[in-house]
Amino acid sequence: MAVPNKRPPRPGSQNGAPVRNGGSSGKPTRLRVMDYNAGTLTEAEAKTAADLLSFKDKKTVTWINVDGLGDAQLLESIGEGFGLHPLVVEDILTPDQRPKMEAYDDYLYIVLRMLDFEEKDGKTKSEQVSLVLGKDFLLSFQETGEDIFDPVRERIRGAKGRTRKLGPDYLAYSLIDAVVDRYFIILEKMGERIERMESELITNPTPKTLRHLYKLKREMIRLRKSVWPLREVVSALERPEYGPLISKNTRIYLRDVYDHTIQTIDTVETFRDMLSGMVDIYLSSISYKLNEVMKLLTVIGTIFLPLTFITGVYGMNFQFMPELGDPYGYFGALVLMLTVALVMLAYFRVKRWL
Amino acid sequence: MAVPNKRPPRPGSQNGAPVRNGGSSGKPTRLRVMDYNAGTLTEAEAKTAADLLSFKDKKTVTWINVDGLGDAQLLESIGEGFGLHPLVVEDILTPDQRPKMEAYDDYLYIVLRMLDFEEKDGKTKSEQVSLVLGKDFLLSFQETGEDIFDPVRERIRGAKGRTRKLGPDYLAYSLIDAVVDRYFIILEKMGERIERMESELITNPTPKTLRHLYKLKREMIRLRKSVWPLREVVSALERPEYGPLISKNTRIYLRDVYDHTIQTIDTVETFRDMLSGMVDIYLSSISYKLNEVMKLLTVIGTIFLPLTFITGVYGMNFQFMPELGDPYGYFGALVLMLTVALVMLAYFRVKRWL
Amino acid sequence: MAVPNKRPPRPGSQNGAPVRNGGSSGKPTRLRVMDYNAGTLTEAEAKTAADLLSFKDKKTVTWINVDGLGDAQLLESIGEGFGLHPLVVEDILTPDQRPKMEAYDDYLYIVLRMLDFEEKDGKTKSEQVSLVLGKDFLLSFQETGEDIFDPVRERIRGAKGRTRKLGPDYLAYSLIDAVVDRYFIILEKMGERIERMESELITNPTPKTLRHLYKLKREMIRLRKSVWPLREVVSALERPEYGPLISKNTRIYLRDVYDHTIQTIDTVETFRDMLSGMVDIYLSSISYKLNEVMKLLTVIGTIFLPLTFITGVYGMNFQFMPELGDPYGYFGALVLMLTVALVMLAYFRVKRWL
Amino acid sequence: MAVPNKRPPRPGSQNGAPVRNGGSSGKPTRLRVMDYNAGTLTEAEAKTAADLLSFKDKKTVTWINVDGLGDAQLLESIGEGFGLHPLVVEDILTPDQRPKMEAYDDYLYIVLRMLDFEEKDGKTKSEQVSLVLGKDFLLSFQETGEDIFDPVRERIRGAKGRTRKLGPDYLAYSLIDAVVDRYFIILEKMGERIERMESELITNPTPKTLRHLYKLKREMIRLRKSVWPLREVVSALERPEYGPLISKNTRIYLRDVYDHTIQTIDTVETFRDMLSGMVDIYLSSISYKLNEVMKLLTVIGTIFLPLTFITGVYGMNFQFMPELGDPYGYFGALVLMLTVALVMLAYFRVKRWL
Amino acid sequence: MAVPNKRPPRPGSQNGAPVRNGGSSGKPTRLRVMDYNAGTLTEAEAKTAADLLSFKDKKTVTWINVDGLGDAQLLESIGEGFGLHPLVVEDILTPDQRPKMEAYDDYLYIVLRMLDFEEKDGKTKSEQVSLVLGKDFLLSFQETGEDIFDPVRERIRGAKGRTRKLGPDYLAYSLIDAVVDRYFIILEKMGERIERMESELITNPTPKTLRHLYKLKREMIRLRKSVWPLREVVSALERPEYGPLISKNTRIYLRDVYDHTIQTIDTVETFRDMLSGMVDIYLSSISYKLNEVMKLLTVIGTIFLPLTFITGVYGMNFQFMPELGDPYGYFGALVLMLTVALVMLAYFRVKRWL
Repeated sequence: MAVPNKRPPRPGSQNGAPVRNGGSSGKPTRLRVMDYNAGTLTEAEAKTAADLLSFKDKKTVTWINVDGLGDAQLLESIGEGFGLHPLVVEDILTPDQRPKMEAYDDYLYIVLRMLDFEEKDGKTKSEQVSLVLGKDFLLSFQETGEDIFDPVRERIRGAKGRTRKLGPDYLAYSLIDAVVDRYFIILEKMGERIERMESELITNPTPKTLRHLYKLKREMIRLRKSVWPLREVVSALERPEYGPLISKNTRIYLRDVYDHTIQTIDTVETFRDMLSGMVDIYLSSISYKLNEVMKLLTVIGTIFLPLTFITGVYGMNFQFMPELGDPYGYFGALVLMLTVALVMLAYFRVKRWL
Repeated sequence: MAVPNKRPPRPGSQNGAPVRNGGSSGKPTRLRVMDYNAGTLTEAEAKTAADLLSFKDKKTVTWINVDGLGDAQLLESIGEGFGLHPLVVEDILTPDQRPKMEAYDDYLYIVLRMLDFEEKDGKTKSEQVSLVLGKDFLLSFQETGEDIFDPVRERIRGAKGRTRKLGPDYLAYSLIDAVVDRYFIILEKMGERIERMESELITNPTPKTLRHLYKLKREMIRLRKSVWPLREVVSALERPEYGPLISKNTRIYLRDVYDHTIQTIDTVETFRDMLSGMVDIYLSSISYKLNEVMKLLTVIGTIFLPLTFITGVYGMNFQFMPELGDPYGYFGALVLMLTVALVMLAYFRVKRWL
Repeated sequence: MAVPNKRPPRPGSQNGAPVRNGGSSGKPTRLRVMDYNAGTLTEAEAKTAADLLSFKDKKTVTWINVDGLGDAQLLESIGEGFGLHPLVVEDILTPDQRPKMEAYDDYLYIVLRMLDFEEKDGKTKSEQVSLVLGKDFLLSFQETGEDIFDPVRERIRGAKGRTRKLGPDYLAYSLIDAVVDRYFIILEKMGERIERMESELITNPTPKTLRHLYKLKREMIRLRKSVWPLREVVSALERPEYGPLISKNTRIYLRDVYDHTIQTIDTVETFRDMLSGMVDIYLSSISYKLNEVMKLLTVIGTIFLPLTFITGVYGMNFQFMPELGDPYGYFGALVLMLTVALVMLAYFRVKRWL
Repeated sequence: MAVPNKRPPRPGSQNGAPVRNGGSSGKPTRLRVMDYNAGTLTEAEAKTAADLLSFKDKKTVTWINVDGLGDAQLLESIGEGFGLHPLVVEDILTPDQRPKMEAYDDYLYIVLRMLDFEEKDGKTKSEQVSLVLGKDFLLSFQETGEDIFDPVRERIRGAKGRTRKLGPDYLAYSLIDAVVDRYFIILEKMGERIERMESELITNPTPKTLRHLYKLKREMIRLRKSVWPLREVVSALERPEYGPLISKNTRIYLRDVYDHTIQTIDTVETFRDMLSGMVDIYLSSISYKLNEVMKLLTVIGTIFLPLTFITGVYGMNFQFMPELGDPYGYFGALVLMLTVALVMLAYFRVKRWL
Repeated sequence: MAVPNKRPPRPGSQNGAPVRNGGSSGKPTRLRVMDYNAGTLTEAEAKTAADLLSFKDKKTVTWINVDGLGDAQLLESIGEGFGLHPLVVEDILTPDQRPKMEAYDDYLYIVLRMLDFEEKDGKTKSEQVSLVLGKDFLLSFQETGEDIFDPVRERIRGAKGRTRKLGPDYLAYSLIDAVVDRYFIILEKMGERIERMESELITNPTPKTLRHLYKLKREMIRLRKSVWPLREVVSALERPEYGPLISKNTRIYLRDVYDHTIQTIDTVETFRDMLSGMVDIYLSSISYKLNEVMKLLTVIGTIFLPLTFITGVYGMNFQFMPELGDPYGYFGALVLMLTVALVMLAYFRVKRWL
C-alpha cells in the first residue's frame, strides 16, 4: 500500500496547514492490550498483529492502544487483521486529518485531535488520535505515547466507575472525554495570556504586544480547526442509527461530551471576540498617544515661535529704530512677550489642552 | 461519584470562560418544599433526601427549591431518590453549564443562567439555575438563595393567578419567566451606561472611555452567551413531543417566554451594533482632534517662520546692507512682515482653516 | 389580570430597546365598528364590550378598530368577549412586541409595527398595531388614532375595490399593506438624508457629520428590527394551514405584501452598506486633510529653517568673519538663500507636493 | 384598477432604492407578435388587446412582445384577455420589482432586471423585463424597446437553432439567457474600471480615487440586488412541479442559465472583496505618505534647530563673550555646527530614515 | 452549434472573472485512449471520433483523454458519438466553468479546475478539466496536455493498485484525486510566501509589502472559487442515487477526496484569516513608526525652541539691557539654557519618551 507516499507534502504547520509525515519518520510503535469485563482483566504488551487477533474473537471488551506510528507495516497488518478498509489505515498513518467520524459496515472510525500548549513559545501542538470502535473491541492510535489515557486505565484496573461494566462504546466515550477535557486546560492557559496582554495593552502598548496578539489569534484559529469539526463528530455519534455499536445508555454520556464541546467552542469564540477588541484598543491608544505628543509640540511651537519673532524684530540692525533707544524699551519688549505667552496659555486652557 | 473532581479546572470567569467550583466550596444547602393543588398548600423545610421523598408520590404538585450547592452528598441522594441520571446530578453540581434542555425518559432537565449586574464595577454576575420537571414535581436548584422566585411563592400562597390550578409545567414556566424578566432589568441598566458613554464620547473622549466601551462589549458577549442558547431551550420545550410533561395550555405561555427571549436577543444585538459604531466615533474624533491640533501648529509655523526669517536677514552683520541705513528701512520691514502675515491669513481663510 | 404590572420596565427607547408603558398611561380608548358585506354597511361607535358583541355573531364582516390603549379594563372585557387568550390581551396592552403571528384555535393574532419619521430630529417613532383575525371579524388595535387606515375605510364606504366583496382576511391584508406602504415613505425620507449626507461628506466633513451618520445608522437598526420579523409574519400567513381563516385568493395578495417587505429589507440593507462605506470615506478624507496640512507645514519648515540658519550665521558677533566686510557679502548671502529656496522648491515639485 | 396610484412614491434610484413610476409617465406602448411552429411563422404588429386574442387560441407558439408601459389601459385589457391576475398587471405596470417567479394556475409570472452600464458616469441603469409563460404563449414586457431580444428574433426568422422546434418554455429560456448574458458585458466593463482604479491607487491616490471606489461599490450593491434573486428564480423554474409548462428538455437549458447566474454572482462577490481590499490599500498608502512627509520635516527640524540655536548663542550681545574675540572663533563655530549636522545625519542613516 | 460564439467575452482573468476563449484559439487536440480490464490493456492515439467509437461498445474500461480544445469540430463529433447533450459539449469548449456535476440519463458530467502556481509572478493559473463518466467509459478533457494524470497512467500500465481491477468510476476518482492533490502543493507554496511576508512585515514594512499582501489575498479568492464548489461536486457524487454509475466501493474513496477538499478549504480560510491579521499589523506598525518620528521632532523642538528664544532675547539691540554689561551675563545665560534643557529632558524621561 504505497498510497500515502504518492501524495505530495502538505503546507508546513507554521502556516496552520496540516503536516503529513510519511509513516516512516514516526515514533517506534508500541502495542498495549487491556481485555476486560466486569469480572476479569487481562493486561498485555503485544509485538505482532497475530498476538492481537487472539483477543479479537473473545466476548470480553478488548482495548488495543497503539503508541507511535513508526512501524507502518505492523499497522497495516493490524488493519488487515481487524478488517479495516485500506483508506482507514492510510488515514491513521498520515496524522493530519481533521476530526471526523466515518461509519463502515461493522466498525466506526473516529479521528480526534489532541492539543498541547507549550508555555514557552505560546504555541499549541496538535496530535492525531484515531479510534476504531468495533462490536467488542476498541483500537486507539496515538502519535506519541502521551499519558492522557492513564486515568482511564487506572479506573479499569481499579474496577471503579462504570467502565468495567459497560462495552467498548463507553470506553470510546471515556477516551473522547479525556481529549476534550484537555481543551479546557489549554483554554485556561490562553485565558491567562489574554489577561496579561490586556494589562500590557493599557500600561505599555508596543508593536511587540500587537505581534503577541496576532500570534494568539493564530493559535485560536488552530484551536478552532480542531474543535469545530469535533462537534459534528460527537453529534453524529449520538445518532440512533449506530445503535448496534453505540448503546442508548452511552449516547447520554456522549451528549455530555457534546455539551463540553459546545462550551469549548463558546469560549474560543469569546476569546476571538476579545482579541479583536484588543486590536482596536491597541490602535486607538497609539493614536491617542500621537495626539498627546503633537499637542505638546503645538503648545511649545505656538508659544515660542511668536516670542522668537519679537526678539528677532529687536535684533535687527536698522539704524533708525526708535524703540531701541528708549530706556524702557527692553522692559516693554519683555512685557509684550510675557503677554503673548500668557494669552496663548489661556487659549490652551480654554481648549482644555493643558 | 467522584466524576466532577476528575475534571481539571476551567478558564477563570475573568476571561468569559466558565468556572467549575468543586461542589465542596458552594454555599450550605437549604431545602424548601411547597406542595399544593387548587385547594391545599403545604410548606416545609427539609433536612434530608428522605424527607423529600414522602412528597414525591403525592398527586399534588411538589416544588422543591434547593438553595446552595455546598452539600454534594445530600444533592446526590436527592438525585437518587428522584431517579435522576448521574450526569444530571453532575451538571447540577458543576454550575458552569450553558443553558440547555435534556429530555430523559420521565423528566426534563433544564439549565438556565440567572444574571446580575453589579452597578459598581459594571460586571454581570452569572448564576446557574437548574430545573428538573417531572410528572408531578419540580425540582429547582440555585447556587445562592436569591429572592427572584419569591413573587412566584407569593402567588402560590395567595392562591392568586393560575399557578395553583395548574401543574408543575406551569410552575416551571413561571420560574423561567422570572429568570428572563431579570434580563430586561440588566439590559435597561446597560442601556443607561451606553447612553452615558455616548455623551462622554462627544464631550471628552479619553482612552478610559474606550476601555469602558471594551468592557461593556465584553459584558455584552457574556450576556449573549446566556441568552442565545436559552432561545433554543424554550423553543425545544414548546415542541409537542413532550406532551405528557408539558400541557398544550402551558405551551402557549412558553411561546410568550420565547417572545421575550427574542426581544432580549434583539436588544443585545442592537447594543452590540451601537457599541461598534461608538468605537468608530471614538477613533474618528481622535483623528479629527489631531487634525485641529496640526492645523493650529501649521498656521502658527507658516506665519512666523517667514517673519522670523525676515528679521534674521536684517539682523545680519554685513557692513554693506543699504536698507539698514535707510530712515524708512525699519518701517518698510515692518510693512513687509505685516503683508506676509496678512497674505498667509488670507490663504488660510480661503482654505477654510480659520 | 395584573400580569403586565409585575414586569419591570424595559430599557428606554433611546437605546433601541423596547418600552413597555403600563396600560394606564395610554391614550383614552375609542371603539369604531364597520360591519359590512357586499350589499350592506353599518358604521358605529361603541362604548362597551357588550356593544361590540352584538356584531360578533352576524355573518357579515365586522371590523372593530380600537384606538388608544388607555382603558385596560375595557380592552380586557373585549378580549373576554371575543374569547381571546389572556396572553393576547397582555400583548395588546404592552405595546413593545416584535412583529409576530400567533395561531390560536379559532383566530390569528398578528402584531405589526407602524413607523413614523420625525423630519425635525431624524428619529423614527414606532407604534404597535395588533390585529385579531377571526372567522368573520377583525379586531385592530392602535396606540394612537393615526389616520393610515382611513383610505381603507373610504374604499369600504365607497364600495370600491374588492374589500366589500371579500372576507375579513382581505381586510387584514389591506391593513397590513397600509402599514408596509408606510415604510416606503420613511425609506424615501432616509434616502434623501443619506444623499444630503453624501455631499456634506465631500464638501465639509466634520465630527457632526459623523454623528449624523451614526444616528442614521441607529435608526436603520431600529427600522430593521421592525421589518425583518415582519417578513416571517407575512410568510407564515401565506401558509396553507390557516386555510379556514385565510382564503387561497387572499394568499395571492399576501404574496404581494411579502414582495414589498422584501423590497423594504433590500433597501434597508443597501442603506446600511452605503452608510458603512460613508464612514470609511469620512475617516479617509480626514486622514487626507491631515496629510495636506502636514505637507504645507513641511514645505514651509523645510524652506525657512535652513534660510533662517543662514541669517543666523551672519548675525553672529565674531570679530573675525571675513564675509561681513566683503562689499558683496550681503548680496552673496541673499543669492545663497535664494538658491537654497529654489532647490527645495524644485525638490517638492519633483515629489509632486506642489 | 387604480391600485398602483394609491401607493406613495418609493425612495429615488439615486439611493439604490426602487423607483415606481406611475404607469402614465412610461414610453408609448408597442405590441409585436411572432406566431410560429417548426413549419410556419407569422409576424405582426397589433394595436389593441383584441388583435392579440386571435393568436391566443392557436396551437402554435405565440410570442407577444410589449415595449413601453405608457398605455396602462391597453396593458390592463391585455391582462384581462389573457386571464392574468390583477396583481400581475399591477406588477408589470410598476417596474421596480425584484426578480421573482410566481406560479399561477395556468401560467408563470417571471420578473427579471435587465442592466445597462453607462460608460460616461459609471452608473448601471436597471430596467424591468416581465415574462408571462402560458401553455402556448409567452408575453414579454419591457420598459423600453431595447434590442437585446433581436438575436432571438433573428434565430426564429432564420429557423436556425432549436427555438422553432420547441415550445414557449424554450423561448422563455432564450430570453432569460439573453438578459443574463448582458450581465457578463457589464461585469467586464466594471472589471476594466477596477483595474484602472488599481493602478491609480498605486501611482496617485487622491480622495477622488476613493470616491470612485465608493461609487463602484454602490453599483456593485445594485448589481447584486438584481442577480441574487435571479438565482432563486431560475432555480425555482428548474423544479419538476411546473412540468406542464416547462418541459424536461428545457429544464436542462435552465440549468445552464443557472450556472451562468452563479458565475455572475461569483464575479460580483470577487469584485466586492477586491474593492474592500482596495480601500485598505488606499488608507494605508495615505498613512505611509504622511509618514514620509513627517520624516522629512523631522530630519530638517532636527538638523537646523540645534544649528540655529548655536548661531543664536554667538549672536547674543553680551559684552564679555571670550569666543567672539578669538581669531578662530568663527571657524570653530562653523566646525561645531558641521559636526552637529553630521552626527544627526549619521543617526538618521542608522535609523534607516535616509 | 454556434452557441458559444453568440456569447460576449467575459471579464478578463486579471479581475478574477472567468475568461471564455472561443474554442478556435485553443491548443491543437490530441486523443489518447487506454482500454483495459484486470487482464488486458490497449493503448492508442486516435485522430477521429470514429476511431474512438470502436472502443465505446466494448465491456472493458475505456479511458479517452482529450488534450487541447483547438479542434472544436472534432470535439463536437466526439460529443455526438458518445451521445452527449449539446450543452455539455458547449461547456467543454468554453473552459471557464465553475466546478460542477451534472447528471444526465446515462452519464455524469463533472467539471474540475486544475490550478498551477507561477513562482515568478505569484499568480495561480487555472485550467478546466472536464470528465464524462459513462457506464464503461470515461472521457477526460484538458485545455493543455499537462502531465498530472501520468502517475495514473503508470499505475494502469504497471497493473499496480486497484485501478485495473475496478471500473471507470474508480478511474474518475483517481483523476479527481490527482487534481485535488495539486491544491496541496499550491497551498504549500502560498504558505511559504505568507511566512516570508510575515517576517518582512516585522523587519521592514513598505507599501510594496501591502501590495504583495493584497495580491496574495486576490489569489486566495481565486483559489477559493475553485475549491468551494468542488466540495459540493464531490459530496454530490457520494450520493447513493448515482448507484449504477458509481459503485458503493468507489463512494468510500470519494469520501476520502471529500476529506481532502475540506482540508484544502480549511487551509484557505486559515490563510485568509492570517492575511487579514497581517494587514492590521501593517497599518499599526506604520502608525507606531509615525509616533516614534513625531516624538523625536517634539523632543528636539521642545528643547531648542525655548533655548533659541533665550538667545534671541540677548541678541536684541536695546541700548539699556543691564544683563549685557554684567561680566557673568554670558555665563549666566549659558547656565539658564542648560537648566531649561535639563528640565525638559527630565520631563521626557518621566514621560518615558527617552
